[in-house]
Amino acid sequence: MTKKRLKILVSNDDGIDAPGIQALAGEMKKLGDVTVIAPDKQRSAVGHAITMNYPLRASKFYKNGEFFGYAIEGTPADCVKLAIRSLLPEKPDILVSGVNHGSNTAINIIYSGTVSAATEGTILGIPSIAISLTTYGSEPDFRYAALFARKLAEMVARKGLPEATLLNVNVPAIQKKEIKGVRVTRQGKTRWDDTFDVRRDPNDKEYYWLTGKLEVIDTSDDTDEIAVMNNYISITPIQYDLTDYATLAKIHEWKFDKLLRD
Amino acid sequence: MTKKRLKILVSNDDGIDAPGIQALAGEMKKLGDVTVIAPDKQRSAVGHAITMNYPLRASKFYKNGEFFGYAIEGTPADCVKLAIRSLLPEKPDILVSGVNHGSNTAINIIYSGTVSAATEGTILGIPSIAISLTTYGSEPDFRYAALFARKLAEMVARKGLPEATLLNVNVPAIQKKEIKGVRVTRQGKTRWDDTFDVRRDPNDKEYYWLTGKLEVIDTSDDTDEIAVMNNYISITPIQYDLTDYATLAKIHEWKFDKLLRD
Repeated sequence: MTKKRLKILVSNDDGIDAPGIQALAGEMKKLGDVTVIAPDKQRSAVGHAITMNYPLRASKFYKNGEFFGYAIEGTPADCVKLAIRSLLPEKPDILVSGVNHGSNTAINIIYSGTVSAATEGTILGIPSIAISLTTYGSEPDFRYAALFARKLAEMVARKGLPEATLLNVNVPAIQKKEIKGVRVTRQGKTRWDDTFDVRRDPNDKEYYWLTGKLEVIDTSDDTDEIAVMNNYISITPIQYDLTDYATLAKIHEWKFDKLLRD
Repeated sequence: MTKKRLKILVSNDDGIDAPGIQALAGEMKKLGDVTVIAPDKQRSAVGHAITMNYPLRASKFYKNGEFFGYAIEGTPADCVKLAIRSLLPEKPDILVSGVNHGSNTAINIIYSGTVSAATEGTILGIPSIAISLTTYGSEPDFRYAALFARKLAEMVARKGLPEATLLNVNVPAIQKKEIKGVRVTRQGKTRWDDTFDVRRDPNDKEYYWLTGKLEVIDTSDDTDEIAVMNNYISITPIQYDLTDYATLAKIHEWKFDKLLRD
């Protein structure tokens, strides 16, 4: 019995030259045929942006003299749309986005380009995984997160995922032997206590720079944020139906039709 | 008894010079004290992007010789963060984003800058409304949608909204007398059947341009898409917890801990 090789699409939001995607693509090649299609430069915190008013360009990107993948002048969601709708000859069996440099937990999920690539894959019918390493330190070691992504991708390829669901994975940036286990989590409610630095440029004109610190307002063990803080790998199934069904059931009594009368 | 005037923040994603935000701000002034803080130019389909790696600038924007609001070199979410965290002396009582030129229903919600502004307001604790006029025709009449937004904002200011919920409103672009009523809806599953035009620039280099048509795969009467098609105003309560709780309950049996062993 011959096993058909998996067709794997790899993308990210840190850009095609980031070490995280290099580690990920290297691992994924052990599992199947990999195509890398990723932004030409860093596109963090771009949310689920797509490019409609400008053209997209794709160019071949080489690493150490070898063809590595396609660099796209666009967002992570653009890369995945273009890959699946145009560049790839066949639909991939699985999409893996990452390894992101920095966590994508709690409120960060909605700003995340890494998650956005996986969301676009899911919309287009591809089982998809977003994977992040929870450190902002310089030159982190992406190898274990990439290895874990490969094993999880193998499991997902075998079992499938529900039609509109992707997996958002966060791996703590510690030694493998310190990892306590894997926890299936919900998106925590922890958010940013933003502040803006008000500065003046050399021409004495004001500008603002976003900064701030995390406000951990959800300390429950079943959240993504707390799982990684406690040295667990966090896996959160997420989806893109934003309907608030609890409120939907209640809000009918608001008599909105009255607003139509003057 | 003196009623305290409402403090209202108005933003959008079509840019501060768009006619939709002018109509909206004009109506909102009948309800309270309005501050307009909006992108300096069109920022459609930017999703929930925020700017972290570049500074933001705010400049005063004048319309017909009068101060209209602050133009921000950033995304809709940037505008709302900067407004609430830095520019405004007090937290606004309500945020209204729009009137968008074009519908924000079904899958479009997750790409929408208009909705993103309202989402950011909700995250920051402000009852928020996104409002869109469902036409892509040129020079549409935003007046009725703006008037409806004002009436709804009055209702929301009185009743409040659940902590993490915003209202996404779509108004069909028809005469007021043709509007059949208001429907409380869920986000439909209708999505884009994307294609990319492959073209060549004057230097004979290839580029890609996103196009496509809506694929109406969810024709249920309780969806936003079908409500506006049938001449109803659609109001969808939405939230930003992306956890797929149904899958979360099931996926525990997957034995992810096995992936940690070699």
